[in-house]
Amino acid sequence: MDVHVDNILKDLEKDDIQAYMLTQFTNIEYISDYRPTSFAFCILKEEPVIYASKMDMEIANRNSTIDVREYESMEMMIGDLKKEGVKILAIEPELAFGTYEKFRDDFSIVSKKYIDKQRMIKSPQEIENIQKATDIAQKSFLELDILNRNDSESVVAFDLVKLMIENGASKESFDTIVTSGANSSLPHAVPEHKSLEQPILVDWGAICNGYCSDNTRTMVYTEFQHEIWDIVAEAHDKAIKVIRPGLKCCEVDKVARDIISEYGYGERFIHSTGHSLGLDIHETPGFSVRDETVVEKGMVITVEPGIYLEGEFGVRLEDTVSIEKRASVIGGLPLNID
Amino acid sequence: MDVHVDNILKDLEKDDIQAYMLTQFTNIEYISDYRPTSFAFCILKEEPVIYASKMDMEIANRNSTIDVREYESMEMMIGDLKKEGVKILAIEPELAFGTYEKFRDDFSIVSKKYIDKQRMIKSPQEIENIQKATDIAQKSFLELDILNRNDSESVVAFDLVKLMIENGASKESFDTIVTSGANSSLPHAVPEHKSLEQPILVDWGAICNGYCSDNTRTMVYTEFQHEIWDIVAEAHDKAIKVIRPGLKCCEVDKVARDIISEYGYGERFIHSTGHSLGLDIHETPGFSVRDETVVEKGMVITVEPGIYLEGEFGVRLEDTVSIEKRASVIGGLPLNID
Repeated sequence: MDVHVDNILKDLEKDDIQAYMLTQFTNIEYISDYRPTSFAFCILKEEPVIYASKMDMEIANRNSTIDVREYESMEMMIGDLKKEGVKILAIEPELAFGTYEKFRDDFSIVSKKYIDKQRMIKSPQEIENIQKATDIAQKSFLELDILNRNDSESVVAFDLVKLMIENGASKESFDTIVTSGANSSLPHAVPEHKSLEQPILVDWGAICNGYCSDNTRTMVYTEFQHEIWDIVAEAHDKAIKVIRPGLKCCEVDKVARDIISEYGYGERFIHSTGHSLGLDIHETPGFSVRDETVVEKGMVITVEPGIYLEGEFGVRLEDTVSIEKRASVIGGLPLNID
Repeated sequence: MDVHVDNILKDLEKDDIQAYMLTQFTNIEYISDYRPTSFAFCILKEEPVIYASKMDMEIANRNSTIDVREYESMEMMIGDLKKEGVKILAIEPELAFGTYEKFRDDFSIVSKKYIDKQRMIKSPQEIENIQKATDIAQKSFLELDILNRNDSESVVAFDLVKLMIENGASKESFDTIVTSGANSSLPHAVPEHKSLEQPILVDWGAICNGYCSDNTRTMVYTEFQHEIWDIVAEAHDKAIKVIRPGLKCCEVDKVARDIISEYGYGERFIHSTGHSLGLDIHETPGFSVRDETVVEKGMVITVEPGIYLEGEFGVRLEDTVSIEKRASVIGGLPLNID
């Protein structure tokens, strides 16, 4: 049996739980290699099974490493579980309340993060895929030649996605951000049909073999923009330098946040320092004020401090690091684009 | 106060519930014009308020028609609600179980579909936006000239998205499907880096002013493919013809399904006949076997029968209809592309 399934069966046994139900698509893919395109229920128990929708049966049978059965009805599935003696059913914290309601009368329900816990630690194969996605994304960014573009934000964003696909990505890992001028103070700005202004902020990533990459670069022009850029770069570099197994995630966040605060911009660093990524673009743990998770070997997390001056501009610099004895930046794109 | 908020306050009063909490991004946008880019909690009560993340404050203040407060902590938000006398808190069925857990000790929680119920009935403005999105998508499809393309599925899919953006879409409304040959038997096939085979199935849509469009066309070649196409077209046309206010959604599904079954392919029509769309690409109600919702004026729903022959090919034909006294097809693209 697959090592991932095996680990979860051990968790279940230890906690005296008979089954763990997955409905999140990337969790099911992580466990079975089958990514649902419609709904699906993956039940991990002594004999794991995936209930797939009729329309997914062909693709599920083709890809899944776990037995697949056609989903007929909630009643049938609940009946199967009861017949097999399931009394306590573990679910993911992301399960929709409406689905939980359909199970709560028949089982004692507990929410468990078994799968997040496993997905936090990436295998060498997973890291290789993130590396590949990053290489494609960074190569495409260089080919975009953004400093010499005389186009609208949306055209430039579109061309970046096109280059990533031509370079081997299956798609972008999230809506590509190309923003400029005052809008760069919005961390999740949407590209507009207007010409590039100054500064230019690009936040982009590719998906390769299902795995995501994530980077941000900001190209600055005025003296004041350079001043802000230098502060963000210092926070970026020093946070990466401090990362090591044993430290808490919030301690990494504090390093970046303290630097920005010392320069008087603490209130303008309006998000966390970073998030894990993998099959999803946002995974746990993250470098945030409240995350007490201890950093471990095999984690892959972004470091992306930023300063956002409402009505003026914003600067964010982001790299993804993989953690062994220390953190190594994935990809070779310099922070400073010129 | 906005009519949408007003209607929900009436629902709350009738059910003796003090507050309704929204976390789904498009529900919050529907109510407030602000689409969160990070998490947000919209609390509908006598004095509605949105708790937005720090990083969303600028965009929320810019767009929201409802008061915005910065989210600080779950405790603070729960404290606010208790101070205002909230005892019963309504939530959306989609709320994550992990979030529900944070509220269940302080409030009596009930799941309500107030907002889905409102979103089922589109305003003339909403229908106009869906019409615009459809026009952009269909115009782009014609410009793609798919019958004369000698490219890979992924390049063609990419070019279709590009055309939609050039024609005024903000983006595609879902991952564009361009599939061909045997893969067309997968309802949610992913475009591959291989040349177009026969038949060619394209399922695509645009987003315009936040609203989605959705269409599918299948271009067939052999006699047998034409035979299957004719059956699907008959199901498509007759289902659209029968739609009228007062009928149940499942009765519309039955019309399409019965036709396909009469020809002996009932088991190969492996999904529902249609789904509503709007701010989301999949909304309720749907033309499905189990949906007993009564069709009403103002609904906008897809009609998309299909026949999927595993290992051979698939045919799906999809239009979106808006319902007044009868159903009118949105857009003017013929079913038969030649």
